[in-house]
Parts: sequence; C-alpha cells; structure tokens
Amino acid sequence: MASPTVVVVGGGFAGLYAARSLARRGVHVVLIDRLNYHLFQPLLYQVATAALSPGEIAEPLRAILRKYRNVEVLLGEVEHVDVNARTVTLEDGDEVRYDYLVVATGARHSYFAHPEWEPMAPGLKSLADALEMRRRIFLAFELAEREEDPARQQALLTFVVVGGGPTGVELAGAIAEIARHTISQDFRHFDPRQARVILLERGERILEAYPPDLSASAQRALEHIGVEVRTGEGATDIQPDHVTIGDHQLPTYTVLWAAGVASSPLGRQLGVEVDKSGRVPVQPDLSLADHPEVFVAGDLALLRQPNGKPLPGLAPVAIQQGEAAADNVWRSINGEGRRPFHYFDRGSMATIGRAAAVAEIRFLHLHGFIAWLAWLFIHLLYLIGFENRLLVLVQWAASYISYERGARLITGPWQAGWPAAELVGAKGNAKERGQSVGR
Amino acid sequence: MASPTVVVVGGGFAGLYAARSLARRGVHVVLIDRLNYHLFQPLLYQVATAALSPGEIAEPLRAILRKYRNVEVLLGEVEHVDVNARTVTLEDGDEVRYDYLVVATGARHSYFAHPEWEPMAPGLKSLADALEMRRRIFLAFELAEREEDPARQQALLTFVVVGGGPTGVELAGAIAEIARHTISQDFRHFDPRQARVILLERGERILEAYPPDLSASAQRALEHIGVEVRTGEGATDIQPDHVTIGDHQLPTYTVLWAAGVASSPLGRQLGVEVDKSGRVPVQPDLSLADHPEVFVAGDLALLRQPNGKPLPGLAPVAIQQGEAAADNVWRSINGEGRRPFHYFDRGSMATIGRAAAVAEIRFLHLHGFIAWLAWLFIHLLYLIGFENRLLVLVQWAASYISYERGARLITGPWQAGWPAAELVGAKGNAKERGQSVGR
Repeated sequence: MASPTVVVVGGGFAGLYAARSLARRGVHVVLIDRLNYHLFQPLLYQVATAALSPGEIAEPLRAILRKYRNVEVLLGEVEHVDVNARTVTLEDGDEVRYDYLVVATGARHSYFAHPEWEPMAPGLKSLADALEMRRRIFLAFELAEREEDPARQQALLTFVVVGGGPTGVELAGAIAEIARHTISQDFRHFDPRQARVILLERGERILEAYPPDLSASAQRALEHIGVEVRTGEGATDIQPDHVTIGDHQLPTYTVLWAAGVASSPLGRQLGVEVDKSGRVPVQPDLSLADHPEVFVAGDLALLRQPNGKPLPGLAPVAIQQGEAAADNVWRSINGEGRRPFHYFDRGSMATIGRAAAVAEIRFLHLHGFIAWLAWLFIHLLYLIGFENRLLVLVQWAASYISYERGARLITGPWQAGWPAAELVGAKGNAKERGQSVGR
Repeated sequence: MASPTVVVVGGGFAGLYAARSLARRGVHVVLIDRLNYHLFQPLLYQVATAALSPGEIAEPLRAILRKYRNVEVLLGEVEHVDVNARTVTLEDGDEVRYDYLVVATGARHSYFAHPEWEPMAPGLKSLADALEMRRRIFLAFELAEREEDPARQQALLTFVVVGGGPTGVELAGAIAEIARHTISQDFRHFDPRQARVILLERGERILEAYPPDLSASAQRALEHIGVEVRTGEGATDIQPDHVTIGDHQLPTYTVLWAAGVASSPLGRQLGVEVDKSGRVPVQPDLSLADHPEVFVAGDLALLRQPNGKPLPGLAPVAIQQGEAAADNVWRSINGEGRRPFHYFDRGSMATIGRAAAVAEIRFLHLHGFIAWLAWLFIHLLYLIGFENRLLVLVQWAASYISYERGARLITGPWQAGWPAAELVGAKGNAKERGQSVGR
C-alpha cells in the first residue's frame, strides 16, 4: 500500500482536525462535506441573536487546507458507506474508494418523540438554523409593534427556550439582553423590556453537566438579566400560538429548541448497532470492532469514560478525537501499534448575557466577569482564521460599548413560513395608528 | 393642521434621507419598509462576491432612527395607495393615513421582454439576490472540481455577466479576481485561472454614462485582470446550460444579470401615467401635478435635466431627492413656497477588481489606484453605522493584503434550485478519483 487514501467525512471539529493532522504528515486525504465551510459551532448562538454574521464564524474548508497539495476537498453529500467494499457513495452516484475512513458527521437536534414540533420550535445546529432563529426573534418584535390587541402583543413578546444546557442558557441570556438593552429605545407601541424570556429545563437544574454551584451561579446571573428560569418543567405540547407546560398553556409565537440531539444517520450504515440516539460504539482506539480501518470521531462516536458515562458531545472532545483518529491512522500506515483515546478535560464554560459566564477548569470554578473574559479568550483562540478573529473582536468590543448587535437583519420571507404573521390580521384603523405615536 | 403625519414608503437612500431630514425637524413621520434594514446598495456586489457579509452593508432602520421619538418605523408591505383618501394600505389590510406622502420604493432589475430568463440569470438588487449570486459563483467552482468531462468543466468555469454598467463592471472584475487570486490554489482537478469571465455590453462601450476615456480605461483594467469585454453584443437567449450571443452558443451555467431596471409597481397607483420603465413623472418640486401633498423621490421618480435626459438612478440622486422632498414638505407645513430640485453632481465612480477604479469628479477624470482610493473613502463615508465602517475597513484591509474573501460561504440548498447540479451526474469511478490527486 504505497500511498493509502484516507477519506474523512464531515468538516466539523472532528473531521477538520483529523484531516489537518494527516495533511501535515503528507498523507493523501479526501475530505467530504456537504457544506463548503467549517462552522465554529460554539458561537452559532451569537449568529442566532445577531451579534455576529455567518461569515465571521465560518471558514471555507478549501481555504483552511489550501497549502496541503495532498488534500482534496469535495463538496458532496455521502449517502452510502460500504465498509466491505471500502467505498463511500455521494449523492450523484460518485464513488470514492478509501484505505482508511474517518466518519465525523456529528449530530443534529432531536425532538424525541415529537418531530411535529420542529416547524414551531427550530433548533440550532447549522447557519440556516441560526438565521431562522434570528428571523423569528426580531420579527416577533416587529409584529408586536403592529399588533393592537394587548394579549396577542404580549404573546409576541414571549420567548420560550426549551432546554437548559449551554445552548439554551446562552440563547435565553442573549434574548433578554436584546430586549432590555439593544432595542430598548426602538419601538413606539410597547416597551421591549416587557418581553418575557422563559428558560425551561426538565431536569432539576440548568447546566446539569456542571457542578451544582456553577448551575446556581448561572441561574442567578440569568435571573438578574430578566430570564425566568423554570426547572423541573418541560414542554408537553407546542402549537403555533402557545406552548403547554404541565397543564398550563402559555401564549407565545417564538419557541426555540435547545434540547436533545440525534446522531447523523450515516452511523447506521457502518454495520454496528448504534445506541438510542444513533451514536456508534467505538473501540478504545476509535475504530470499529470489525473494521479497524474505519474510525468514528466526534459527536457520532460513543465511547464510555472510565466512570461508565459516555463522553459528551463537546467541541474539545471532537477536536481531540479527530486528532487521535488521525494519529492511529498514521500509526497503522507505518506499521506501529495504535493508542487508546484519552480525553484530556481542560474544562468547560458557558456564557450568560454580556459580561457573565460560568467556567469549570479542572478544580477551578469561575463565574461572573472573570469567567466571561476567559470565555472570550478561549473562543477567539480556537476560532479559525485571523480575519475572523479580528472581525469578531471588533464586533464584541462594539457590542460591549454600545449594546448594539451588528447583524440585526430579518432575512428570508417575512410573511411566509411562520404562523405568527398570519395571526396579525387586519385590525385598528388609520387614525389610531397615526395618532398613537405621541402616547 | 396641528401635527401633520408624513408617511414615507421605502427605506432606501431616498426614503431614509427624507425620513431623517423630517425627523430632525420634529415632524411626525411613519417610515414603512418591507425590510427591517437600510441597505447600502453600492456595496451589494461585494456581498455577491463574498468580500463582505450582509450585516456589514445593512443597518436596521429602527437603529438609525432610534433617537427620534417622533418617528415610527413599520415593517410592512404597502399594497395600495389611495391618493384621494390619503391612505396607504398594508399587506394585512392595515391603513395608514397621511397628510404628506413620500413614495421612494425604487426599482428592481428587469429582463425586458424576457422574464423567463430570471431563473437562469439572477439580478442584483437585494441581499437575497446577492447571496444567490454568491451561491452560484462558488458552487460552479465546487462542481467543476467534481466534473470529469472537460467540456462541462469548462462550461462550469465560464461566467457571463450581462450588462456593462457599473454593476456589471464591478461583478466581472471581482469574479476575475476571485479566480486568479482568491481561490487560485484551492482546487486539485483544474486550475481556477482557466476560468473565463465574459462581460457583455449591447452598447458600443462599457460604462456608457461616463466619458469615453474612462470607459476605455475601465476596459483596459478589466482586460488586464482577465475579463473578456465584448461590446456591441447582447444575449439573445439564455438557457440553463448556455447563453446565445448573436448566432453563437456559449456553454455556461452561470449568467449574472446586470442590465435593465424596472420601477416599483407602486408607481402605477399614483394616478399619473408612468414611462415605459415604470417611473413616475414629477414636478420640479418632486410632487405630483395633481397632488402636491404626494412626493416621489429616488429611482422611482422621473425628472428630466435641463438637457432633456432623465436623472440617472444613482445613490447621490436619491439622497438629494429624499432631502429635497423633505425640505418641500417642511416648507408647506410652514406655509412657505417650495423650491425646485436641482441635482448637484459631485461625480460618479466604479471600481474594477482590487486596486483600480474610474472616477469622474466634475472636470476631473481619475483612473487606476488613485481613483480606487477615492472610491474606498467615499463609500466608507456614506456607509451608515460606525461599526459597519470599521468592519468593512478591516475586511478590505485583510483582502488587500491576503487576496482572501471573508464571506466565501455557499448557503442555501446546493443541490436544488440550480440546473447545473443536476447536470453533474454519475460519472467516473472511485479509482480515478482516488489516484488523481497527485497529477
């Protein structure tokens, strides 16, 4: 096997870091993704809340890997993997043969047993998702400005975030900050500070993966900026104009989904039994039991820690697994023995609004402003592309000073695709509208 | 009339500057737009060619007018104007009564007698248009990387821009620069420098509104960066896989439309006869002959200069007309006589690729680097929002140094909605693909 081909499927953290690691060693790599860019997912909620533009957290895969002439990037969707023939098949029937395969196609959000909730409660995994959330959040305020029925206006100003993990906490904090600061002077027919932001967490505390003291600290910080944190409560039904919590119906047109993930369907084609969220069990070296030439890394991989718990679906895990899979491919090519994967936990952090965060860094528990600074620094460090770092820094500095959000655009059709717009029907008369401005 | 209401329809240059001018005088203004942002159209081609992100050339109307408590901004689409009842009707039946009306709904691109060309040749008037152009340009390169038939690959690498006005010149120059610099090292199965960029201009020279020496200079600059400029030639047919120029069929999957505008349909509701492109003839004070309380400003207005030619559809004309209409409203409110509109021509400019431009500033004709610097300065000056200026400056500086384009994302469904993707069918085999990288 003179020049083996390594096919990497997926350009997220695991796939990109695997490809780059092999690229540096001169191995022939084919990286396949259905998007032309690597997305820095930890900042996706900032696109959903208009703090950043899509281009600032995404970098073309070709640009990142440009200098490695041994790497091929293909824009394509892998529809089939044949682990016996050692080929992957793209959407148009193109086959790509591999000697080693790294599958890193990650996860999407899941609605558990309620796929019918998706149109009413978009999740946050892709740039398209983020722009849809941004559209709904800012459109709700616009429609509230035109709504003359007080009950419907209040429903338009009610935002429900389902799921109290890091994404839910960050979304709820950002929406509260928008209402209380960014747009507080922008409307004439209501006070944006009357907006309600409700964070629902079915478990007994938010940020369950963190130590209890940091969960408590995050909840205090959220409540301080006006978020209603409701633990032990989940959505039992979601309709276009309300969400049901227990027996209570809460009128709202904007529900954002930050609960539950389901793995990429590609995992089911690898000939192994996946767990109930679709994750693929891997050997300690991240390969499949019956196919040592096939590796799975990132959110799609199921690897239990010594305490029996599976590793969480976090960026640092994906990065380290991508690099570890690449190492083991390299060792095999060179006839060396493989090494088991060990996750080195540098800590984890979540941000809350504009100047607070919680961080767990080994034995250190940080919260408040110092945690927020640590969060800023780490995220800038891992963001790919010098220009992106500079642009994000400029936006963050400007937002910090002015409370402004630089990407407050409602894009996409504003009348179509969302039930609230239809509900804001003909109402009032011209005179009322004309005279109402001074009130 | 104690506190008259001025309704301004449209938040482009004419509408925004009219609203702001009246806002500063304390007049009660209702600004209605179907978008929540003002778009800086002169830089739209930079979004289409991935140099800038949408958020950097758009600013929320509410944020711009926030400090004027006498201004109401409504997100809405005006469907009907009743100049006798003095009302405008929104898409949901809401009526807004006015004492004075400023209609500034501008123009869109027009396909003349060929509306069927639109799906094959998108134009450039909105952010959605720009993102569609960006998607097609960068997707064509991606598909070329996967195409094994040399003829189809060359067709994917052929870009035709129809129309040699400023937009066509700027688009063609930017695409040539992308192929020759930005992505020149990014592909393994073709050399992006083999891309052809063809600029078609039906008239005898490009930039016909400019003096002949600047047209010639612009053509030289375009040819220098590899654009084929073809004057005296127009498209006679556009199909998904080719464009017909005279009797010749040129295979291409990417045609961009930069020719012809048609005015907003709202102009036809004002009770006056519009010209063939839909523009509304106005009196010297910019009002309608039979309705002195109704003004039309910007691209929608038809006002002839002393030489008999209508004023062109340019940003400076729209800005000055918006302010002049506001002045005349203010004079009427105060019982003063109105003033006729005079356009003060400060000059015009168009940019070509990364460091060249042409500019006509009264008697001064500039070209090359100095014209480009003037272009940069003027555009930054007129761009609204301090943060936007800073972000654009950072992007421009980074692009100038690195040739990189910070927003090179293919968004939207890449397999759907565009004929080329379907044409790239099953072809080749895995072995060829796998072995081809070293060639």
